[in-house]
Amino acid sequence: MKKYLLTPGPTPVPAEVSNKEGLPVIHHRTAAFEKLFVEVNENLKYVFQTKNDVLTFASSGTGAMESAITNILSPGDKIIVAETGKFGERWWKIAKVYGVNAVILKENNGDPVNLENLKKALKENPETKAVYSTLTETSTGVANDIKAMGEIISKTPAVFVVDAISGLGAQKLHSDEWHVDVVVSGSQKGLMIPPGLAFASISDKAFKLYEQSKLPKFYFCWKAGREFIEKKQTPYTPAVSLFVALHESLNIIKAEGIENVWARHLKLANATRAAVKSIGLRLLSSSPCNAVTAVCVPDGLKGGDIYKKMRDEQGVNIAAGQSELKDKIIRIAHLGYMEKYDIIIALSALEMVLTQLGYKFELGKAVSAAEQEFLK
Amino acid sequence: MKKYLLTPGPTPVPAEVSNKEGLPVIHHRTAAFEKLFVEVNENLKYVFQTKNDVLTFASSGTGAMESAITNILSPGDKIIVAETGKFGERWWKIAKVYGVNAVILKENNGDPVNLENLKKALKENPETKAVYSTLTETSTGVANDIKAMGEIISKTPAVFVVDAISGLGAQKLHSDEWHVDVVVSGSQKGLMIPPGLAFASISDKAFKLYEQSKLPKFYFCWKAGREFIEKKQTPYTPAVSLFVALHESLNIIKAEGIENVWARHLKLANATRAAVKSIGLRLLSSSPCNAVTAVCVPDGLKGGDIYKKMRDEQGVNIAAGQSELKDKIIRIAHLGYMEKYDIIIALSALEMVLTQLGYKFELGKAVSAAEQEFLK
Repeated sequence: MKKYLLTPGPTPVPAEVSNKEGLPVIHHRTAAFEKLFVEVNENLKYVFQTKNDVLTFASSGTGAMESAITNILSPGDKIIVAETGKFGERWWKIAKVYGVNAVILKENNGDPVNLENLKKALKENPETKAVYSTLTETSTGVANDIKAMGEIISKTPAVFVVDAISGLGAQKLHSDEWHVDVVVSGSQKGLMIPPGLAFASISDKAFKLYEQSKLPKFYFCWKAGREFIEKKQTPYTPAVSLFVALHESLNIIKAEGIENVWARHLKLANATRAAVKSIGLRLLSSSPCNAVTAVCVPDGLKGGDIYKKMRDEQGVNIAAGQSELKDKIIRIAHLGYMEKYDIIIALSALEMVLTQLGYKFELGKAVSAAEQEFLK
Repeated sequence: MKKYLLTPGPTPVPAEVSNKEGLPVIHHRTAAFEKLFVEVNENLKYVFQTKNDVLTFASSGTGAMESAITNILSPGDKIIVAETGKFGERWWKIAKVYGVNAVILKENNGDPVNLENLKKALKENPETKAVYSTLTETSTGVANDIKAMGEIISKTPAVFVVDAISGLGAQKLHSDEWHVDVVVSGSQKGLMIPPGLAFASISDKAFKLYEQSKLPKFYFCWKAGREFIEKKQTPYTPAVSLFVALHESLNIIKAEGIENVWARHLKLANATRAAVKSIGLRLLSSSPCNAVTAVCVPDGLKGGDIYKKMRDEQGVNIAAGQSELKDKIIRIAHLGYMEKYDIIIALSALEMVLTQLGYKFELGKAVSAAEQEFLK
């Protein structure tokens, strides 16, 4: 059966990119690799909208998250974690392992970070070394107001760290302008290549904390990474074939223009939201993001059933809910190498499966609602 | 110019493998991935010659090395590092970052671990938690006698950890039979895929130390990795395209048979050694390994010049020396997807470049010495 990948990571890889990935491996200590490395770094800065160095690790995104704890903190330090779902949680779980004290601001599933709570927490905890949050929370489909958060945090000594693993390239992010000190990301989302690379952009303010930090780090050490960028290299053998793929995908993003990439994701997200609402379904999030739409499952149905039927009988792989949201939501990604017709496919499959499961609505309605959005 | 990769990593990737790497990415939470994951794990055990679980990380080999420190030790613990070059050094450099005390047994460049010194060190340091060493030391071309070391160490409470990053699949290694508790490796060497995956096999003896270990770990946590193996998954998004490539390359290795793979590497290594000796060059190592041959550069010449001329003018990428061996040696790899004619190419290019640089010998002699070895 022909398969369609509409999950919030891994996302589809353009053939122009995957073909490059399979080319003969080049050695990394060569002029050919160094040229590619320099171009990749320039284009990463463009996508991150930052003047800061962006370090690339052979790793999942979680490795880069861990680096954003170990490279700026010491045991006993206090941080604030403004979490809006399962991936936000990961910040304090890592912190805990390292003996860092996290003040946790937890929102109800679907709600974004409450700015007043953040202000209050910063006032009550003036010794806060850093605030950790998430651009787009993949588990709940929430977009946080990083711009407003950055404005608040920049008035304090705290460093602002944002997980943009699923958000980068999907949701507007002006890292420098919005006072984000550290942005971590991964390769298998908006960057349109397979999983295996992770990134961290690091401001000078954050790097000052590195100098004081006492937590141990080796493979994910930022200082080593920064020093090697000067030499147009990485400290340890880079994942060369993924770098080559990334070089190509970044060129594609640059050619489209990052503002246009964001606008495309917004358009696909808007169409998805309008479509599911048109057939009586509710969004989980009061602040829905442009990477993935979390849709509440109608009473009497199970999210896992919808997900499995779509995947196994229709070949359309969306995502189910995770943990306590397992059967309560389904998640349709509009992330990375996607266009209007990827959304039409997802909606058409959803319509057919919901009908099979006995949910009543006018067949074709969701698709037409999306088309109306696309025609705007 | 047509290019030839003869470095000790990355190594050439068979087209059958790289073509698989570029296939559409599959989602990792699917039956298709789980089937592949189970088969990969079975075949990794075969290549590692172990019954233990082999964990796979999205990472360079160094990440797996770090995991073999943080998952079994606590601050203040004592270890023995039996180092025979730059990569052996890395063990105590990581240990130092984590506040672990390393007794360092350092050999002269080219010499293998001295077994008497190891016995003595173990006797003098009965509280030693683990001994760290290297199967084939890429920087000096040394093979260590892991079998004999394992016999010595197994009589003590210490755990034996071996870096087989460049050695796996090139040099005979019976992990379980030789009492090796932890074997770490990487993907871009004998496993014939691009860089980006790292591995660690873990014995029950080593895992007992995990339970006592107080060093912090998150991304590289062995317990999480072990628990997810049961679920046919990895704790964090796996580097799917590299997994797919690995699945194919492990099938190729299994079809050849690991004993035959080792024998092929030995044959290529023997031919390389005989060839360079036939034109008056000396091997650096008194215990040369089968992954890479380190050749001393004749008086008056610089290793860097030979390396660069071969790479830039002949398209033949061997390796130069590193650190203090920079200009003193060159290194010719016979590692991974290589056969007789890869060695012939390296030797032919070496003959021409040495002649251009003024070194006197009978042109064709090295090639013929290799051919004689191949005809045996």
